[in-house]
Amino acid sequence: MSENNAKFIVIEGLEGAGKSSAVALMHDFITRHTGREPICTREPGGTPLAERIRDLVKIADPSDPLCDEAECLLIYAARAQLIHRVIKPALAAGLWVLGDRHNLSSLAYQGGGRGLMPLVHAVSEATLKGFKPDLTLYLDIPPALGLSRAAGRGELDRIEQQALDFFERARATYLQLAAEDDSILVIDASQEIGQVHKDILAVLQGIQW
Amino acid sequence: MSENNAKFIVIEGLEGAGKSSAVALMHDFITRHTGREPICTREPGGTPLAERIRDLVKIADPSDPLCDEAECLLIYAARAQLIHRVIKPALAAGLWVLGDRHNLSSLAYQGGGRGLMPLVHAVSEATLKGFKPDLTLYLDIPPALGLSRAAGRGELDRIEQQALDFFERARATYLQLAAEDDSILVIDASQEIGQVHKDILAVLQGIQW
Repeated sequence: MSENNAKFIVIEGLEGAGKSSAVALMHDFITRHTGREPICTREPGGTPLAERIRDLVKIADPSDPLCDEAECLLIYAARAQLIHRVIKPALAAGLWVLGDRHNLSSLAYQGGGRGLMPLVHAVSEATLKGFKPDLTLYLDIPPALGLSRAAGRGELDRIEQQALDFFERARATYLQLAAEDDSILVIDASQEIGQVHKDILAVLQGIQW
Repeated sequence: MSENNAKFIVIEGLEGAGKSSAVALMHDFITRHTGREPICTREPGGTPLAERIRDLVKIADPSDPLCDEAECLLIYAARAQLIHRVIKPALAAGLWVLGDRHNLSSLAYQGGGRGLMPLVHAVSEATLKGFKPDLTLYLDIPPALGLSRAAGRGELDRIEQQALDFFERARATYLQLAAEDDSILVIDASQEIGQVHKDILAVLQGIQW
């Protein structure tokens, strides 16, 4: 999508799939490959305003529970702001961008998990207008395994507290979309972490950048 | 739109058109007509969470200026929450709802004013799914007159600080949409306030509820 050779690379996956350590690994790879550190983003969030939107999504308010449509629209508001303020300017300046989640998360969680695919598609198309990552690595893991890892890290946020079938639907959507899109590569994240990292590096090294 | 006889009535108009005093007038009319006070809402806002979204839209953050797409999506997130938590439950319970702004504001300001009509239409259709007010009164006023009135009230917020041509485009959109939709009635709000209120009451009294 970028006008120069700068790439927008995204890591995706359910809670506990190992995204954080994968981001560190990919950050090092991109820095060595390009000679410059990439701009790192996370979604929802990544600008001061988008981080305030993230809090509305992540922190449950028992007095006014967020409805599913509002959750979806808030996430896209944060994404629009991040793309406008950070991702597109970085790519235009020749900087690579490494994203911890992007649009595929909305398709999986709000589209598949919440059953809001028509809303997600409508908003996605009207907001992104074809803008998408050059490459997405999807860390695939059975939800029960991922959630048990995530729970080991501490308290679960509002999204992480969803029932298991929510994550099963999200995973099914991830896998279906990966099967339909050559720019989404699946990594088996249920393996031992050393092997997961070997697989990620093999993918990155095998690409004709 | 409601299943019983409860109605959703909305007041619309540019800054300084006289919406607040019109809301008070309409509140009294509905209370007398139905024997019960209507539920009053304002947009963006009207629930604790939607009011936090309103702050993101209304209060300028010079360090991270809100992009137009994010503004539009935040407003729809707040609207989805308000409909889900307040408007639909009230109508279902037989209570009338009196709204200070609703979807027509997004069509006028974000669609007409910002030039984002395709995004507004996509999000509007996917979020509202045909839900709309039973009646909208649009208080029409030349932007220069309205803004001079609004400025007399005190400091202008982020939206009110837009240039005059933004409001000219919003007004043109209001008038065009009113011409196309029988449920939107235009009141000449440039008249003396006593006459404006007479016109509003004449409209309300003339309707076969």
